[in-house]
Amino acid sequence: MKRIAVLTSGGDAPGMNAAVRAVAKVAMAKGIEVFGVKRGYLGMLHDEIFRMDGSYVSGIIDRGGTVLLTARCLEFKDPKFRAIAAENLKKRGIEGIVVIGGDGSYRGADLLSKEHGIKVVGLPGTIDNDIVGTDYTIGFDTCLNTILDAMSKLRDTATSHERTILMEVMGRHAGDLALHACLAGGGDGVLIPEAENPLEMLVYQIKERRRQGKLHDIVLVAEGVGKVQDVEDYMREKVSTEVRSVVLGHVQRGGTPSGFDRVLATKMGARAVELLEQGEGGVMVGIENNQLVTHPISFAWEGTRKYDIKKDYELAVMLSK
Amino acid sequence: MKRIAVLTSGGDAPGMNAAVRAVAKVAMAKGIEVFGVKRGYLGMLHDEIFRMDGSYVSGIIDRGGTVLLTARCLEFKDPKFRAIAAENLKKRGIEGIVVIGGDGSYRGADLLSKEHGIKVVGLPGTIDNDIVGTDYTIGFDTCLNTILDAMSKLRDTATSHERTILMEVMGRHAGDLALHACLAGGGDGVLIPEAENPLEMLVYQIKERRRQGKLHDIVLVAEGVGKVQDVEDYMREKVSTEVRSVVLGHVQRGGTPSGFDRVLATKMGARAVELLEQGEGGVMVGIENNQLVTHPISFAWEGTRKYDIKKDYELAVMLSK
Amino acid sequence: MKRIAVLTSGGDAPGMNAAVRAVAKVAMAKGIEVFGVKRGYLGMLHDEIFRMDGSYVSGIIDRGGTVLLTARCLEFKDPKFRAIAAENLKKRGIEGIVVIGGDGSYRGADLLSKEHGIKVVGLPGTIDNDIVGTDYTIGFDTCLNTILDAMSKLRDTATSHERTILMEVMGRHAGDLALHACLAGGGDGVLIPEAENPLEMLVYQIKERRRQGKLHDIVLVAEGVGKVQDVEDYMREKVSTEVRSVVLGHVQRGGTPSGFDRVLATKMGARAVELLEQGEGGVMVGIENNQLVTHPISFAWEGTRKYDIKKDYELAVMLSK
Amino acid sequence: MKRIAVLTSGGDAPGMNAAVRAVAKVAMAKGIEVFGVKRGYLGMLHDEIFRMDGSYVSGIIDRGGTVLLTARCLEFKDPKFRAIAAENLKKRGIEGIVVIGGDGSYRGADLLSKEHGIKVVGLPGTIDNDIVGTDYTIGFDTCLNTILDAMSKLRDTATSHERTILMEVMGRHAGDLALHACLAGGGDGVLIPEAENPLEMLVYQIKERRRQGKLHDIVLVAEGVGKVQDVEDYMREKVSTEVRSVVLGHVQRGGTPSGFDRVLATKMGARAVELLEQGEGGVMVGIENNQLVTHPISFAWEGTRKYDIKKDYELAVMLSK
Repeated sequence: MKRIAVLTSGGDAPGMNAAVRAVAKVAMAKGIEVFGVKRGYLGMLHDEIFRMDGSYVSGIIDRGGTVLLTARCLEFKDPKFRAIAAENLKKRGIEGIVVIGGDGSYRGADLLSKEHGIKVVGLPGTIDNDIVGTDYTIGFDTCLNTILDAMSKLRDTATSHERTILMEVMGRHAGDLALHACLAGGGDGVLIPEAENPLEMLVYQIKERRRQGKLHDIVLVAEGVGKVQDVEDYMREKVSTEVRSVVLGHVQRGGTPSGFDRVLATKMGARAVELLEQGEGGVMVGIENNQLVTHPISFAWEGTRKYDIKKDYELAVMLSK
Repeated sequence: MKRIAVLTSGGDAPGMNAAVRAVAKVAMAKGIEVFGVKRGYLGMLHDEIFRMDGSYVSGIIDRGGTVLLTARCLEFKDPKFRAIAAENLKKRGIEGIVVIGGDGSYRGADLLSKEHGIKVVGLPGTIDNDIVGTDYTIGFDTCLNTILDAMSKLRDTATSHERTILMEVMGRHAGDLALHACLAGGGDGVLIPEAENPLEMLVYQIKERRRQGKLHDIVLVAEGVGKVQDVEDYMREKVSTEVRSVVLGHVQRGGTPSGFDRVLATKMGARAVELLEQGEGGVMVGIENNQLVTHPISFAWEGTRKYDIKKDYELAVMLSK
Repeated sequence: MKRIAVLTSGGDAPGMNAAVRAVAKVAMAKGIEVFGVKRGYLGMLHDEIFRMDGSYVSGIIDRGGTVLLTARCLEFKDPKFRAIAAENLKKRGIEGIVVIGGDGSYRGADLLSKEHGIKVVGLPGTIDNDIVGTDYTIGFDTCLNTILDAMSKLRDTATSHERTILMEVMGRHAGDLALHACLAGGGDGVLIPEAENPLEMLVYQIKERRRQGKLHDIVLVAEGVGKVQDVEDYMREKVSTEVRSVVLGHVQRGGTPSGFDRVLATKMGARAVELLEQGEGGVMVGIENNQLVTHPISFAWEGTRKYDIKKDYELAVMLSK
Repeated sequence: MKRIAVLTSGGDAPGMNAAVRAVAKVAMAKGIEVFGVKRGYLGMLHDEIFRMDGSYVSGIIDRGGTVLLTARCLEFKDPKFRAIAAENLKKRGIEGIVVIGGDGSYRGADLLSKEHGIKVVGLPGTIDNDIVGTDYTIGFDTCLNTILDAMSKLRDTATSHERTILMEVMGRHAGDLALHACLAGGGDGVLIPEAENPLEMLVYQIKERRRQGKLHDIVLVAEGVGKVQDVEDYMREKVSTEVRSVVLGHVQRGGTPSGFDRVLATKMGARAVELLEQGEGGVMVGIENNQLVTHPISFAWEGTRKYDIKKDYELAVMLSK
């Protein structure tokens, strides 16, 4: 394979740039020409495709966001537009692409592969850690540290004012961020979509803390369990302390990627190029058991996650006492 | 004066602990006994007053929040309860107190001084920088850096997704935080209560940016201009980019204090003890013209701020182009 | 088992406190009494053993260093003194201990187990990542991020002054820190003890960068390859740019532990208690293939590391071009 | 004045980019053409002068170092070469320049002004805070925070291992960094060139700490007092604890500038353009008494600093007890 392209798609995640850089540098080292596609599939459709050189990826390894930009592209659900996009690749001789993003992005890649013979390799780039076929996604570790930093600040004020602070973090479908933040931040409670009746457990935990004379709490709330305002209203009736809520929001998406995410993104980017070089496609790269692995790209929606989140939830509950 | 006490009151601010530490250590070095009052005036009323020693303030200089805790105390508006509180000080031989907090806290101190002859020294502790008689309050610098860190993360995602992000920061009565963050963070617009028609200016600025081909913006919104959701609704109709808003909230109150705040708090704490040692009272300490100054404590509500915020607002507008 | 103790030994590492906390809290949740031993084996010998309660481990999860302190104890090589130490445990009814530290600490634990029937569980706590039987040690991830932060600062000045900066990082026996920092920080060269002739490769790399017009470099130097001053002298003769070196030193040992290290330490601490509860001993806990595993404690010096560092070194060299 | 240029000179300092950006953006807003000079006077001599546009300064406000690069230029001491440099400005119609750097840089500017009629404005850019005519230099506040961050990490390990750690920080001629770090970081001793017999005081302080049962210390050592190794050797004989030293080095020069430095740099940059616009020159801008001021540029070597460092040293000594 002589020409490949790389794009980022879906919500941005810290470490995407490190992956783009690795794809570009490893491709160049192997004598493969590498192109960048701007704004994900939207740019592929609108022919925003350009030749990348070393200077383009210089100094980006430690920057959050994605220099390739990202956007939604509803047209890509229509085969007619996918044909145009594929043609934009082919007219440049691009035979393979690396798609960095979430499972939504993988679906587009899968169709491009099946309908137009483009070799695709998907890399899991999302802060939510909710992709099947990998223990960690690019961006999760950085986001966890961002949440912990905010949590530490909230702890200061919760303690000083003796309040219960509910902290909503990202994770529409997966409680990984909330749960890991609770474990790592010494949280006093956590609400995740995967747990049964976490609200009842939370009320129990906080009452137990009051019994021990503790008058402040930090509670992690995964986006997926519902509106934090509803939780606040519910808690206000159950506990005597003042309750406040904070929605961390988009702050969680950005920031300098952590070492873990940069190493992960770098190795995955390198592997993606190796796979395309060998003519492989239709696969996603994951890290499982601390080793890079590949799965058919459809595994992202056909497989199931290995992570036993309930066991970690129980540990979190035990430690919050 | 042989015995003094220290308390924190109102919203917590990073650097309060550094001030408490300085009060305690300088008092001890001068042979003055020092007491801590828990939960501000509430603890003074409920007799939560204890003898402080060196170990109590060890290791707190770099911690956010306040180890003395803080609380509201509505009873303190009633002279009957102030008399009880004063008696709790007097029965221990405490003749002077250092009150670290905002101007609301100063009013209580002023009454305590006038009604019961307690010598009081106020130190400006609040992130908002809205106290008359000082160029900087303890906590403002740290909070500015916290906002800039979040702003940098939001910039990553605003750029990657080509969005307009509105970032609400604290400042109910003063736009200092929003404006300084705009200047220091390279903000693309700022809404502060002190400016006239900032919304119109903002729309103009963003349209100008579109004309230059810039498709992302970070806008600082001071709490005091109203609900960020209303601003979001307004902007959505005026600009073509997607608009998102983030309310940073209580995260702004906590965190390890910056060097600036710790030095300021330390010097102010030391000065407060010197003043009480000399028998002075009824004063607040400020930093003006880079020097520690004192004002009558009532200056906090009778005086006016020197800061010419409009000039800095004009600079911010000029630079955002 | 009704009573256990926990100690930290060897060089301190961020995350040790999170492990101590997990041991204490999980033990309490299971109705096991838990003791702390101060200053590692030295305190065991000098009977510095105390009953821990919840308040002792409150608020320590995010603090670097070790609240239990650590020290060298040469006497512990003498069986006579080990007998005294074991007696200090037994007289309190302590049947099992958790030792958090490096492989040197494991040896003492192993002897205590064999000679005196104390059940021991070792947890890998060291920034160097040089312990056999685990993919990651507690402290490594935090240290990597500390190095990356310093590296980013050095990059600013190396670029501005167009210099070659050699950055010596820890790792007497293992190049993990240097190599991961090079991969994650976009380093321009790396010297690790495991590579053959890395100096020659480095000179080649830098000359190649000059050919491309790049006039600044950051080079990671693992402590284990020798004195950075010697490397500096060598390089000064080979490259035309000014060469400077920085020895990051003890700064690498401290700091708030990262989320990764806190989660790892927490899970390992919980597992250690479970093992003792089940009457197991003479084992070390590791994380391999993203799962907690146990090995006989002697595996730490009898086994060999799985990590294929040469492959990652080659990737680092490829990316630095 | 229709055309101006900006350059950075001497050691790089965080905030220089914010100043460059402000100069460029304010000049453009005023309809003045602005040029960048690369590598300070060296680039002026070698004609590395280019027209700056908005995109050049976009996204640099939060980056350490200087995008304009910096270098030494010994030739600039020779009037012949200064004439060539001046000619390079004049042939482009550049009538005024902004020089961001230390007092060494101001001397070159002064000669350029006197010999060739170039209007010059100097801005104080150095981490050392050692420039006469300003209370703060651009970069000092950031550097202080960098030192405090490292100090906090060293505190973890000093406490855990019960050691005395000597931390050498920058400041060849001024103890500002060491002293402020001691005040803000809760240092247990400080050696600055301005104090008399600080070593004796230090030994006294540490012995006093031992008497109180404190077995760990962090001591700040300003570069200007001599080699930290000599201090280490001296202390080793005087105190019983293990002594270690750390030379923070070039790490102190880089990093994202703090809010304070960015606001300061931004305001100074704006003022420099206003001055040139009004035809003023031969001046340096400072901040004194919290207000921007101007002095004749020679004030930097003819004036004396206002800062009463001995008073702050006494406070530091009092607090370290």
